[in-house]
Amino acid sequence: MTADNTPAADAPAPAPVPAEDAAPAQNPLLPEGVTYCNFDDFSKIRLTVAEIIQAEAHPKADKLIKLQLRLGDREKQICAGIRAYYTPEELVGKRIIVVDNLEPRKLRGETSHGMLLAARGPDDTLALVTLDKPDFPTGGQVS
Amino acid sequence: MTADNTPAADAPAPAPVPAEDAAPAQNPLLPEGVTYCNFDDFSKIRLTVAEIIQAEAHPKADKLIKLQLRLGDREKQICAGIRAYYTPEELVGKRIIVVDNLEPRKLRGETSHGMLLAARGPDDTLALVTLDKPDFPTGGQVS
Repeated sequence: MTADNTPAADAPAPAPVPAEDAAPAQNPLLPEGVTYCNFDDFSKIRLTVAEIIQAEAHPKADKLIKLQLRLGDREKQICAGIRAYYTPEELVGKRIIVVDNLEPRKLRGETSHGMLLAARGPDDTLALVTLDKPDFPTGGQVS
Repeated sequence: MTADNTPAADAPAPAPVPAEDAAPAQNPLLPEGVTYCNFDDFSKIRLTVAEIIQAEAHPKADKLIKLQLRLGDREKQICAGIRAYYTPEELVGKRIIVVDNLEPRKLRGETSHGMLLAARGPDDTLALVTLDKPDFPTGGQVS
């Protein structure tokens, strides 16, 4: 240790050094463990209003429903893990919000071209994200 | 022009070169001009169910409403540009979905700690993103 690092007897006490294993302070305005994103991050995600025009059980996956969607002048298929919460019949006609530009992926032989948004609650409950105006035009961007 | 650039009379016709201003082919499953994102991109965005517990006109911005939100055991303020579409009174009690971890920003003196989701339609219409179950618990993640 050099003389420069040795505190003089009358120097103020050094600031306490946090223990290395101390958890970072939680921001009370954010969910636990979550950090900020910026608007550019959000802009990469395209959220779109869609109407469910057809719904049926996925033939090879107990938890999935296969949905045909209308999004303005486009139509496409997604698969959603909501079969424990909704029957196909009650889904038809609903407005939902989809992550429209999520890379397609194949789920047991059926391609999902996006992902619907849903909220999870306590006790294994689930609610679909929708609009407060049931007949709102589809295809519009959500931001 | 050099001799090398002059096609021989019996050479096969060169492949057509796309015009430099030709637009890239549009993927019919995506909105115009939009490219894919992946799940990591989506995971940076934290969407949370919130209840509007208080709403008032922003004192210094004609288009903004100041909202106090409950998100489970947290509360916070956001500002939303929806004053042309909703009165403060009709907003109180509604469930909305917010980009919970968007960097805070100050809007004419009031800090907005996130952004609510809304859909725009034709003819300057707007609908709020909400849940299909009006009394669903707040604070839960949307994914």
